[in-house]
Amino acid sequence: MASASTITLSKTEGRVAVLEFDAAHEFNPFSMNRMRELQDLVRLLDADDEVGAIVLYGGEGRSFAAGGDFNETSEFEGGTDVDEWIDHITDLYTELVRGKKPIVSAIDGFCVGLGLQIAICGDYRIASERATLIMPELKLGIACTFGGYMLEALIGRSAMQSMVFSADPWPADVSLAHGLVHEVVDASAVRDRAIERAEAMASWTAAAVHGTRPQINEAFAEGLERCRVAGKSAHRSAFSAGEAQERMKAVLRKSNA
Amino acid sequence: MASASTITLSKTEGRVAVLEFDAAHEFNPFSMNRMRELQDLVRLLDADDEVGAIVLYGGEGRSFAAGGDFNETSEFEGGTDVDEWIDHITDLYTELVRGKKPIVSAIDGFCVGLGLQIAICGDYRIASERATLIMPELKLGIACTFGGYMLEALIGRSAMQSMVFSADPWPADVSLAHGLVHEVVDASAVRDRAIERAEAMASWTAAAVHGTRPQINEAFAEGLERCRVAGKSAHRSAFSAGEAQERMKAVLRKSNA
Amino acid sequence: MASASTITLSKTEGRVAVLEFDAAHEFNPFSMNRMRELQDLVRLLDADDEVGAIVLYGGEGRSFAAGGDFNETSEFEGGTDVDEWIDHITDLYTELVRGKKPIVSAIDGFCVGLGLQIAICGDYRIASERATLIMPELKLGIACTFGGYMLEALIGRSAMQSMVFSADPWPADVSLAHGLVHEVVDASAVRDRAIERAEAMASWTAAAVHGTRPQINEAFAEGLERCRVAGKSAHRSAFSAGEAQERMKAVLRKSNA
Repeated sequence: MASASTITLSKTEGRVAVLEFDAAHEFNPFSMNRMRELQDLVRLLDADDEVGAIVLYGGEGRSFAAGGDFNETSEFEGGTDVDEWIDHITDLYTELVRGKKPIVSAIDGFCVGLGLQIAICGDYRIASERATLIMPELKLGIACTFGGYMLEALIGRSAMQSMVFSADPWPADVSLAHGLVHEVVDASAVRDRAIERAEAMASWTAAAVHGTRPQINEAFAEGLERCRVAGKSAHRSAFSAGEAQERMKAVLRKSNA
Repeated sequence: MASASTITLSKTEGRVAVLEFDAAHEFNPFSMNRMRELQDLVRLLDADDEVGAIVLYGGEGRSFAAGGDFNETSEFEGGTDVDEWIDHITDLYTELVRGKKPIVSAIDGFCVGLGLQIAICGDYRIASERATLIMPELKLGIACTFGGYMLEALIGRSAMQSMVFSADPWPADVSLAHGLVHEVVDASAVRDRAIERAEAMASWTAAAVHGTRPQINEAFAEGLERCRVAGKSAHRSAFSAGEAQERMKAVLRKSNA
Repeated sequence: MASASTITLSKTEGRVAVLEFDAAHEFNPFSMNRMRELQDLVRLLDADDEVGAIVLYGGEGRSFAAGGDFNETSEFEGGTDVDEWIDHITDLYTELVRGKKPIVSAIDGFCVGLGLQIAICGDYRIASERATLIMPELKLGIACTFGGYMLEALIGRSAMQSMVFSADPWPADVSLAHGLVHEVVDASAVRDRAIERAEAMASWTAAAVHGTRPQINEAFAEGLERCRVAGKSAHRSAFSAGEAQERMKAVLRKSNA
């Protein structure tokens, strides 16, 4: 039953755990198994007293994460398969959001849909100057209930509207201007800069950080639980329409070509 | 009992309905009859399967909308007349916000108070480079309960404070910097650009868009309902004081001079 | 039992009351007595029909406010002393937020932690070009529950994350770009500019302003009440750990040297 590990854990001397998405396709799609793997790793690290902060990184020369795994979602029929997928997504996001330890994302390449939502669950985002962030759900024929909620919470309603209703790709500088990322650096520096920021956070007293993060994240986490409930019907309808799966298969053909 | 039509409907080949406020004064004030007319049109279009998105436009060389109709409000006595007005306003806004179909506003000239609030109810705003956006309620002696709530929801509390407590006019570039509008173009291009954006949205699958928009707008709509209740007493008090009506009559004399 | 006055009240011809924090250390720390003094003054001014708006100012050549009084907090043991402190803080903030009259802050020098939170409770912030705004709680070993909530409400979640999880000082231009302040002027002009803005607000009709401010602030005030409850346990834990007090004593030694 155990699936192969697709995420590598390493630790720095500065009490930072680095989770590197260095297996699978270089675009780093997230299947349900992989979501669960990330969730379990983050839960373990949150309980590990030797870890003060966590860095998420897609691996050198790879994308941070290009969304869900279309091999999986392109076969959805719009019933309980969708519910199971939404549960995996919500469980992962709330695990990331409710933990006590700060999470820094180091974003290179594409950071798309579900991948961008993973980054949004963290506390600090460093992008490489060549990163591209997109919330393409509506254009792909998928409901954008999580994306809409999470972007509005993070960067405000107006910027959410821009990203969701244009489905335009945002380069690093546009993402910085809208607060979607906090810093932009050279691709070669993105991992180190994320570790540097995380090590500063890891150097602060545990009592202050652990008393703060869950509290300032709780309202956001409650909103994610509302998305879990409300999102299922919207996503069931969109997948039942069938067009999303066709568009996903077309993307798969192109990315495997 | 039927009032004259003050809004013209046309449709593009790309499944977009354009509502043009091309009658009445070139500043496009909104009387209660006109609010109801817009509300009814939007409800019909939301139910029309041949329409994928809606564009709101003030008409060529005209203002998007310069707020309520002072001929009406300058006669208010601060009783049930105010309640009826607040109900018209809330009914219109919640109709715009709760619909399934994206709304793009093409903003030229003045976009003021109630007119700006109509634009805020939509999903995407294109301004002409000569547009001026203002929330002048407090300066006019009117309560700014809807304006405060809607601006805070859209562009954040800080920018709301700036607009409400300065009552300063924002030119297009300032509005863009604060996210009050998403794009700025030449006045000659504002209608076409809005249609272009709306046609892209109209090309997406109905299941995805219709499952998404009501969900990401529901919290905002609930806030508008709270404003309906709380706003009545504040607006009654302000109109009872009488100064607002005097200022409105002065504006009317000037704009009719 | 009466403590010495540390805040000077003056009034302008334009119906503005200026509260100047011109006693105590030039960094303007806020002890519990001083919080209560400010709260009482603001309550009186809110009830004074001759006052239309309030300006908060740290005094010429002085900091706006550099946070809590470390002489007090560095002696905390993490029990009811913390609860009493949180009650003083929450009582002050909700008094500032729930009043009917606009508050403009004139910010020079340092504006830190609790001092920055006082400024956030107001409606409009003018910073001098040499002002420095910081939310250093986590770095100091203190929980940042109020800071996290208040920054997210004012400037959005992303900018809050940046300020809280970096603990970096923000100069005036960065603060302006993120909406933490609304205007930046020369240090010599900061008091006059704040009075000018406040006098404009004081010139508007009382009915409109008094009907508006409490309504657009009520949701924010309710969040502060939630912080009162949730914040006590987080702050008790952080002070019980003891490190915060040591860091505060080190800061005191340095600032008194």
